[in-house]
Amino acid sequence: MGQVLAADIGGTNLRLALIDDNGQIIDECRVEAKLSRHNQSTREDAESYVIDALCNAISPFLKLHPVSDIGIGFPGFFHGTSGILAGSPNLPLLQDFALGKHLSERLGIRVAVQNDALCAAIGEQRFGAGQGHANLLHITLGTGVGGGLILNDSPYAGERGMAMEFGHLRVVHNNGRVCGCGNSGCLEAYASATAVSRRFTEKTGIDADARMVYEQACDGNKDAVLILKETGLYLGQAIAEAIKLLDIETVTISGGLSHAWQHIHPPLMAELNDNLIPPLRGKVSVIHSTLDDNAGLLGAAAIASLH
Amino acid sequence: MGQVLAADIGGTNLRLALIDDNGQIIDECRVEAKLSRHNQSTREDAESYVIDALCNAISPFLKLHPVSDIGIGFPGFFHGTSGILAGSPNLPLLQDFALGKHLSERLGIRVAVQNDALCAAIGEQRFGAGQGHANLLHITLGTGVGGGLILNDSPYAGERGMAMEFGHLRVVHNNGRVCGCGNSGCLEAYASATAVSRRFTEKTGIDADARMVYEQACDGNKDAVLILKETGLYLGQAIAEAIKLLDIETVTISGGLSHAWQHIHPPLMAELNDNLIPPLRGKVSVIHSTLDDNAGLLGAAAIASLH
Repeated sequence: MGQVLAADIGGTNLRLALIDDNGQIIDECRVEAKLSRHNQSTREDAESYVIDALCNAISPFLKLHPVSDIGIGFPGFFHGTSGILAGSPNLPLLQDFALGKHLSERLGIRVAVQNDALCAAIGEQRFGAGQGHANLLHITLGTGVGGGLILNDSPYAGERGMAMEFGHLRVVHNNGRVCGCGNSGCLEAYASATAVSRRFTEKTGIDADARMVYEQACDGNKDAVLILKETGLYLGQAIAEAIKLLDIETVTISGGLSHAWQHIHPPLMAELNDNLIPPLRGKVSVIHSTLDDNAGLLGAAAIASLH
Repeated sequence: MGQVLAADIGGTNLRLALIDDNGQIIDECRVEAKLSRHNQSTREDAESYVIDALCNAISPFLKLHPVSDIGIGFPGFFHGTSGILAGSPNLPLLQDFALGKHLSERLGIRVAVQNDALCAAIGEQRFGAGQGHANLLHITLGTGVGGGLILNDSPYAGERGMAMEFGHLRVVHNNGRVCGCGNSGCLEAYASATAVSRRFTEKTGIDADARMVYEQACDGNKDAVLILKETGLYLGQAIAEAIKLLDIETVTISGGLSHAWQHIHPPLMAELNDNLIPPLRGKVSVIHSTLDDNAGLLGAAAIASLH
C-alpha cells in the first residue's frame, strides 16, 4: 500500500500528514481552514465553501506528495463508510452530502472520510494503546469531548453515524452547566479543555487555558488540582455508564487535556469502579493514548489504506 | 428445522414451551424451579443443584415432546454463544461453568443457553415489534429492568456477556435509591415493577403490586398516575443515554409493567427527545412489544434453532 495522506480537521485549522503503512509520519503541516458557518445562505454555498476550503488546504501538500489516497477525519456524522456526510453541527446546511465523492473528483485521488472522533479510535486501535484489543472505547479530550467505538475490530458508527456522542452523556442532572449542544449537564460541559479552563476561571477569577490549569496543578495550586480531580470523577462516571451498556474492557484517552493524566486518572478509576456493576469492577483498563495528538491523523491514514 | 423446546427461567419458576419455526407456541407449561443460593457451600454443590433443578423441571416436558433442541434464557452472563456461564448474580459460586454442555449431556439433546434479557431482544427482533430492524435495543420491565441489544442482526453480549446492564444506568445522582446491585440511583431502583410497587406504597401507605398501581392509575388515582409518569421519565432519560452511545432508531419494551403503556409512553418520549442531541430528536421510535410476556421464550426458541 505504501504511503497515504491523512487530514485531521479541527474548528480552525487542518493538520495534514504523509504517513506510511506502519503509522510513521513522514512529513506534516498545519493549514488554516475555517469550517465555520461563515456567510453560507444556501446549501450550494455551503457545499462549494467546504469543498473549496478543503481542496485549497490539501492541494499544495498533495502536489508535494503525489499519492493516490487520502483519509480525512471530519467533524460530522457519516453514513457508514460511504463518505456521505449525514450532518455536521458546524455546517447545518449540509445534510446527506457526498463529501468524499466531491473531494475525490476535485483532488483527483481516492478519498475516505469519516467522523473525526471515530478516526481517533481507529488510529489508537491500529497504532496506539489500543493495539491488540478487538473492542475499544476511545475518548478524545480536547476543545470538546469525543468518543469512538471499535467493536470486533470494526469501527462502529451507528445507524446515522451518530454513535458515541460520549461528550453528551449527562453527568449532572439538576442545574447542570449548559452545553454547546443545547442540553445541560453534559460531560463535555465539565470535562473538555474548554470546560476546565472556564471552571478554573470561575473559581479563581484568573484567566487560564487548560494547559495553564494543568501547570498550576503541577505547582500545587489547590483549585487547579480540585478541578482536574473533578474532571476525572465526571469522566469515570460517564465511562461507567458506557461500560454498563457495552461491556468493553479497554478504554483509551487522547487529546490535549489527557496530558494531565496523573491528576485525572486516579479519581477517574475510583469513580469508574464505584459506578460499575460489581462483577465488572477492576476489570476495565483506562489507558493513556500513546499517540499524543496524532490518534485522529493516524486513524485517517488507516481508513485511506483500507480502500 | 421444525419444532424446538424453549425455556425462560425466572427467579422462582421456569416457563417451558414447544415452539415452531414461525414462533407459534404449540404447548407450554410453568414449573417451579428455585434457582436461589439455597444451601450451596461449594461450587460442586452449586453445579449439581442447578443441573438437577433444571433437568427435573425440563425432563417431563421433553418426554412429552421429544425434540432434539432446546433453547434456554437464563439469568446470568455468558461467554458469547458457548453456553459457558461467566457468572450469575443469583449463583455466585458458578463462574465459567459449562452450563450448556452439562445440560446437554444430561438431557440428551442439543442445548443453547443465553442471557434471559438478550433472549427477549432476540425474540422481539425475530418474531415481534422489532421485526425488520437490524439494530434493536430491547428493554424488559419486570421484577428488574433488563436490556438486550441486537447490532447488525446479531445479538451483542459484550466481552464478558455483561453488555446492556440497562437497569443499572444511573438516573439519580444524589441520594438515589439503593439498588439490588449495591449501587444507588440505578434505573431499576425506580422503573422496575418492584420499584413502582414500593414507591406507591411509600407515597400512599397502601400495599399494592405494580398491576394494582396500574389499575389505580386507570381509575384516576393521582399518586398512581404520577408514579407511572415518573417511571416513564426515568426510562426516557436512560434510553437517551443509550441512544447517544449506540445511535439506534428502534427501541422495544416488553414485560409486565409495559402494560401501563398509555401512562408510561408519553412522558418517556418527551423526556427521551429532551435528552437526545438535537439531530437525533424525533428520530427514535419506542414501541410496545407485540409478544407480551413471550419475548424471552421466543428468543430462546430462536437460539435453539440456530444450532
